[in-house]
Amino acid sequence: MNYNAALKLFVLVIAQTLLLPALSQANEPDFQDLSAAYYKDHPGKGKYGPLWSPIPIQKYWNPKDFYQPPSSVQGEKTAEQCVECHQSLTPGAFHAWKNSIHANLDNIRNLSSEDARFYKKQKLEDIEKNLRQRGLLRESENLAQVGCIDCHSGVGAKSVDHAKKLIMPDRAACGTCHVEQFTEAESEKAQTWPQGQWPKGHPSHSMDWKANVETAIWAGMPEREIAQGCDMCHYQQNKCDGCHTRHTFSAAEARQPEACATCHNGVDHNEFENFMLSKHGTVYQTQGKAKWNFEAPLKDALTKGGYTAPTCQYCHFEFEGEFSHNLVRKVRWGFNPTPAIADNLQHPWFSERKEAWLKTCADCHSPGFAEAYLTAADKGTIAGLKVEQEARHVIENLYKDGLLTGQKINRPVPPAPEKDAPGGFFQLFWARGNNPSAVERVHADMWEHDLVKLYKGLVHANPGGFTYTEGWSELMKDYAFIMNENTVLREEHARNLPKPAKNGFVEFLTSGYLLGLVLIGAGVAFILTRNKRS
Amino acid sequence: MNYNAALKLFVLVIAQTLLLPALSQANEPDFQDLSAAYYKDHPGKGKYGPLWSPIPIQKYWNPKDFYQPPSSVQGEKTAEQCVECHQSLTPGAFHAWKNSIHANLDNIRNLSSEDARFYKKQKLEDIEKNLRQRGLLRESENLAQVGCIDCHSGVGAKSVDHAKKLIMPDRAACGTCHVEQFTEAESEKAQTWPQGQWPKGHPSHSMDWKANVETAIWAGMPEREIAQGCDMCHYQQNKCDGCHTRHTFSAAEARQPEACATCHNGVDHNEFENFMLSKHGTVYQTQGKAKWNFEAPLKDALTKGGYTAPTCQYCHFEFEGEFSHNLVRKVRWGFNPTPAIADNLQHPWFSERKEAWLKTCADCHSPGFAEAYLTAADKGTIAGLKVEQEARHVIENLYKDGLLTGQKINRPVPPAPEKDAPGGFFQLFWARGNNPSAVERVHADMWEHDLVKLYKGLVHANPGGFTYTEGWSELMKDYAFIMNENTVLREEHARNLPKPAKNGFVEFLTSGYLLGLVLIGAGVAFILTRNKRS
Amino acid sequence: MNYNAALKLFVLVIAQTLLLPALSQANEPDFQDLSAAYYKDHPGKGKYGPLWSPIPIQKYWNPKDFYQPPSSVQGEKTAEQCVECHQSLTPGAFHAWKNSIHANLDNIRNLSSEDARFYKKQKLEDIEKNLRQRGLLRESENLAQVGCIDCHSGVGAKSVDHAKKLIMPDRAACGTCHVEQFTEAESEKAQTWPQGQWPKGHPSHSMDWKANVETAIWAGMPEREIAQGCDMCHYQQNKCDGCHTRHTFSAAEARQPEACATCHNGVDHNEFENFMLSKHGTVYQTQGKAKWNFEAPLKDALTKGGYTAPTCQYCHFEFEGEFSHNLVRKVRWGFNPTPAIADNLQHPWFSERKEAWLKTCADCHSPGFAEAYLTAADKGTIAGLKVEQEARHVIENLYKDGLLTGQKINRPVPPAPEKDAPGGFFQLFWARGNNPSAVERVHADMWEHDLVKLYKGLVHANPGGFTYTEGWSELMKDYAFIMNENTVLREEHARNLPKPAKNGFVEFLTSGYLLGLVLIGAGVAFILTRNKRS
Repeated sequence: MNYNAALKLFVLVIAQTLLLPALSQANEPDFQDLSAAYYKDHPGKGKYGPLWSPIPIQKYWNPKDFYQPPSSVQGEKTAEQCVECHQSLTPGAFHAWKNSIHANLDNIRNLSSEDARFYKKQKLEDIEKNLRQRGLLRESENLAQVGCIDCHSGVGAKSVDHAKKLIMPDRAACGTCHVEQFTEAESEKAQTWPQGQWPKGHPSHSMDWKANVETAIWAGMPEREIAQGCDMCHYQQNKCDGCHTRHTFSAAEARQPEACATCHNGVDHNEFENFMLSKHGTVYQTQGKAKWNFEAPLKDALTKGGYTAPTCQYCHFEFEGEFSHNLVRKVRWGFNPTPAIADNLQHPWFSERKEAWLKTCADCHSPGFAEAYLTAADKGTIAGLKVEQEARHVIENLYKDGLLTGQKINRPVPPAPEKDAPGGFFQLFWARGNNPSAVERVHADMWEHDLVKLYKGLVHANPGGFTYTEGWSELMKDYAFIMNENTVLREEHARNLPKPAKNGFVEFLTSGYLLGLVLIGAGVAFILTRNKRS
Repeated sequence: MNYNAALKLFVLVIAQTLLLPALSQANEPDFQDLSAAYYKDHPGKGKYGPLWSPIPIQKYWNPKDFYQPPSSVQGEKTAEQCVECHQSLTPGAFHAWKNSIHANLDNIRNLSSEDARFYKKQKLEDIEKNLRQRGLLRESENLAQVGCIDCHSGVGAKSVDHAKKLIMPDRAACGTCHVEQFTEAESEKAQTWPQGQWPKGHPSHSMDWKANVETAIWAGMPEREIAQGCDMCHYQQNKCDGCHTRHTFSAAEARQPEACATCHNGVDHNEFENFMLSKHGTVYQTQGKAKWNFEAPLKDALTKGGYTAPTCQYCHFEFEGEFSHNLVRKVRWGFNPTPAIADNLQHPWFSERKEAWLKTCADCHSPGFAEAYLTAADKGTIAGLKVEQEARHVIENLYKDGLLTGQKINRPVPPAPEKDAPGGFFQLFWARGNNPSAVERVHADMWEHDLVKLYKGLVHANPGGFTYTEGWSELMKDYAFIMNENTVLREEHARNLPKPAKNGFVEFLTSGYLLGLVLIGAGVAFILTRNKRS
Repeated sequence: MNYNAALKLFVLVIAQTLLLPALSQANEPDFQDLSAAYYKDHPGKGKYGPLWSPIPIQKYWNPKDFYQPPSSVQGEKTAEQCVECHQSLTPGAFHAWKNSIHANLDNIRNLSSEDARFYKKQKLEDIEKNLRQRGLLRESENLAQVGCIDCHSGVGAKSVDHAKKLIMPDRAACGTCHVEQFTEAESEKAQTWPQGQWPKGHPSHSMDWKANVETAIWAGMPEREIAQGCDMCHYQQNKCDGCHTRHTFSAAEARQPEACATCHNGVDHNEFENFMLSKHGTVYQTQGKAKWNFEAPLKDALTKGGYTAPTCQYCHFEFEGEFSHNLVRKVRWGFNPTPAIADNLQHPWFSERKEAWLKTCADCHSPGFAEAYLTAADKGTIAGLKVEQEARHVIENLYKDGLLTGQKINRPVPPAPEKDAPGGFFQLFWARGNNPSAVERVHADMWEHDLVKLYKGLVHANPGGFTYTEGWSELMKDYAFIMNENTVLREEHARNLPKPAKNGFVEFLTSGYLLGLVLIGAGVAFILTRNKRS
């Protein structure tokens, strides 16, 4: 090892073993402050709140604002009654919990240091210490288990008025014990784009409900049962069971790529498909499913976990060698390549994040490979953006010129607070009459789907995902369709223009009128002449 | 536990442990009756039979009507010869069978009560008792194994004339021993829609071959090698190896979601994709693949099986707490949302089935959640149906007005027994000239693919499956394309109409003729005046 | 067993146990010859080389021509230093290797004969023997391990000049030890089509880099970061880690279907999707993932491996009962059904390969089933080809008639060496102005995607893959769109033709001029008459 490498290693070791944890502890906020800030930041119904009313299912996506306990079960219920009754009423929920860590905390206490989950022993002690400091656990007391009532009423509660006080746990409820994870997750809100490319906190799990309810077409569309489908992913700001599903609440589950799949798939951001088809993903499928130990914490993934390829979590929870629930510290393109990002990749905010990515990749790859690949991914994304921008210009000019099909005769405006625009985001979720026209919808798909898939395919190293099946080839198709329609609409327009010559002097000169007049004149002249002669 | 809950539990326990099995046994028909009814109900080639001839591969999809033993192996073969010869000839089939339960029945007899498969011991005894009663097993005899000859000739056969008597097992062949499953599966035929939305027995595995051969375009399309692709799923009425693949015939295999995947995926009913991407599916993938015990029968799924989320089978085999091979007792929308269903959801037939679904969901979820979710799914489906119906009206009017591209010059009729119709089902599988026109095909995709995917995404709780990637957003796109084409076709038509004014009085008034006449009149008048003066 | 079967078995056993291995050994070329031939055949940048420059990432896809060691680490490094330094610098790569066979060769030597991997013991001895013969291993020496330096510098190297001599291993580097696999893999180059349907060696892993760089649009497209995405699959000619991913290099990994998924998926050849959704694939997913032993070599798959269904590898590595890295000995349709293949399936080259396939299928299926299925697959493919050819004709005529949208006003030519053509392959990856027009792109998708998917769905027995979701139904859609556009373009053209009658004698006869003249003549005649009378 040469001097530089040794120095680098030394700094890394020092940073990882001493500084970062220390900083992390030093920065750990008090739960009360954290919880207060969480509620203060929460948008509730958001700025378009007056325009929509929640439907019943939404009380589960945003319990803070909409949940009411059911009136079907009346009276004060003890912790034991909760368990006893739900064992037969909702056996699926009961057994999931019964086999979970929450129901078996002693299993944690008895772990041997050989067990990949051994790290949980310390975490449990930290939680208990913290609860004791906050008076939620007696000094001499250990947590026996975390049962129904601890989450659905309050940590340590003995009974709850089921019809009046039952709660549906939110982020802060989980954060009551899991202060460290809550802290990390909430720190995503600090994400600030250098040139205002996106609002503060975007994109992050910690602000996804706000992003949801403050999207104009979401608030405006009349089909609320469809709109609530957006909530089914955009609720991570509200709850933790998107990744740690109830009632197992497993860390090992949440460390597997499929845990991300429900939300991170499909036309607008096909991360899951790209990962699974990349070599990273096929190694996960061929070696990982059978052999890796997902009980190991991410920091031990390569050693105790036996990972031979990264997972979603390994790369996205990592930042500068540390793993946390803040997933946006390396975000550069977000979910949408735009010129405002493409034109600023040399800005330190972006270049430092690229550096951070290079370190992540270098856990397995050479720095040369990482640099070459990431640079290609950026340039490839920019190539796609250029195509999309040319098409956008075509669409905008058609709109400006009033040439979109039906634009002048049958173009209803979208519901408030949405506003009309050519190829707008709303056109993916709302249509009436000739709004959108076909060519606009192709463009909406182009920028919101195909360009994003190009970039997601590139950064996740799925070749078919950016060259052929998705991405570039689809952009070429969109472009060809838009250019085709542009030619058709403009030729059609040219053909139907009132032909100015026909009403003017030239028209008169070439018309029958002139000939008629000449003939008549000639006739008259002839007659006059004839008369004169006669 | 309060009084109501206790009463409910008591009733449930009584029902599950005493009444239902008793009823089930009481209702168990005699195999001979069942088998006779099975063959009586079987449509063979169906009502369009005279219009098509089976191709060789179809003898495997419907052996009852088309199978003939191969002539390559002549003579009587003993049970031992079958095994001996096929061990080397078809080693894949041999080893699958050799490692299966059929080849190792003693493994069943020796199971400990701790084993999740222990229930099979009783089943085996029931089967043997039944076979003894029917004279297929001697009183003192146990089934040693189920070998080639038992299924390919007859239970207990000692030898078979390979070239003349060999059979390809059908439902009734499996049902010879598995009378209980055969009975359950055949009971699907009783499915009767309250307002005749679909024919009796639709949709069910037990009638899927009939649904296949009695589809007009299936019978009429000339490409029989493509048509037989439909048979590759629509043969469950004929055989059991669609779920319990040969020659393992495993119950544990058939309990896993992938067992349904070959048929329940894709454009027309993407149940598998929706399940896998739902949280139910991701829990299956992260927790289930490694930890659940699929050897446990469905009734023990939550306990011995350790399921922490439902599988396809858990929800669709269940009805009122009981599990069986009748999968249609909770069917409401079938595979195709139509107004005839949407308008009748308040009918007891539908509302009782919704109640049954709520009980299923409530195994894990609160009744409030289940009710809110299912109601949202229904309303979301109806919202999509409304969009599709508006588009359908547009297509039908274009057809009525003769404005579809090529409608008057190049629209061949589909092959008999199919009949022409705008946006018809046949247009997904047949095209010639301008039948279908492009806009019709978009509509065929809309009602047969995108609307179905909307509803399948909703009911399987896959958010991207109904909001964005499939479902609503695709319906918006189809709608935009159809409305665009409607405007284009109608504007084109209007432009090319013979302009009536040009041949009429107004045309005359504005034409040069009138001016000519006026001028001539004026000339004549002038001359006359001139003449008078002269 | 009758006489014929016994004879067949005898011949098979003899062939497998004596002849084939003997032949295989006899044919095994000397590594030096093999390696020399490999480099001689390698196209480097290919015939279009002068038209493009490699971008940095391409040095990893084709290290032979583009790789240069990094200058960041200077000086001679020992084998031990490599490991020591990379343990901390690239821990992912280190641990993958550390847990691999390469780092633990003694594990191979100590295998019991019961272990499915026992065959590796003999392979290791063969390798060592071969290395000794070539002087790469001392007579008395065993391979201790295969470490960084053995692959990145040379087998047995003690140190390497990291900045000057480091290599990125290519096929020949792996082949240094794995001579048998290298020999098999290189033998694919002998693939010769009987009527020149494809160039020699096509399609094969051994020539995929050549196929890549000698594709005109690949060489010509200006977006090199997109083009290198093609390399990400088309590098098997260069390296072995496409299937045996670094730094595990596992045979068991490469035997699982997902190992093929990165390249064999998507619009142009969706083999992976078809396999996974076929019954073969669902059996793999339900039974195989948990129970089959992928450590067993393919020849033991049905016995020690416990396979109850085939994998990609089981069928495609097999030929006449033997398994090897030559995957093209049964190729018939390649990746693209064309008339030149369809019209020659009776040629011995094709019929013998079909016979070979029938033997493969017959490992599990009856010969009757195999024959019936493969024949249906061929006929179904030909049915699709017919539809595509009709559409192709329509597109070519539109091009010939100059009627494609924008053809005369806005059709840039593609970048050299590509040449313009209607519906050409290049139109999937390049678009400018109205090249391609929309209808051409639909046709490009039709022949390069949907027809291929039809055939891939058929041959992989995925019913939805050829009837409905992909394949036939999509071909019908493409066809309908193309025919629709054909009618629209030709009607439009007819409408806009200069109408010859309007400038001719007939026009004159029917025009106002004649009537005007007649009227004027009549007026004049009247006046003259009047004058005469007066």
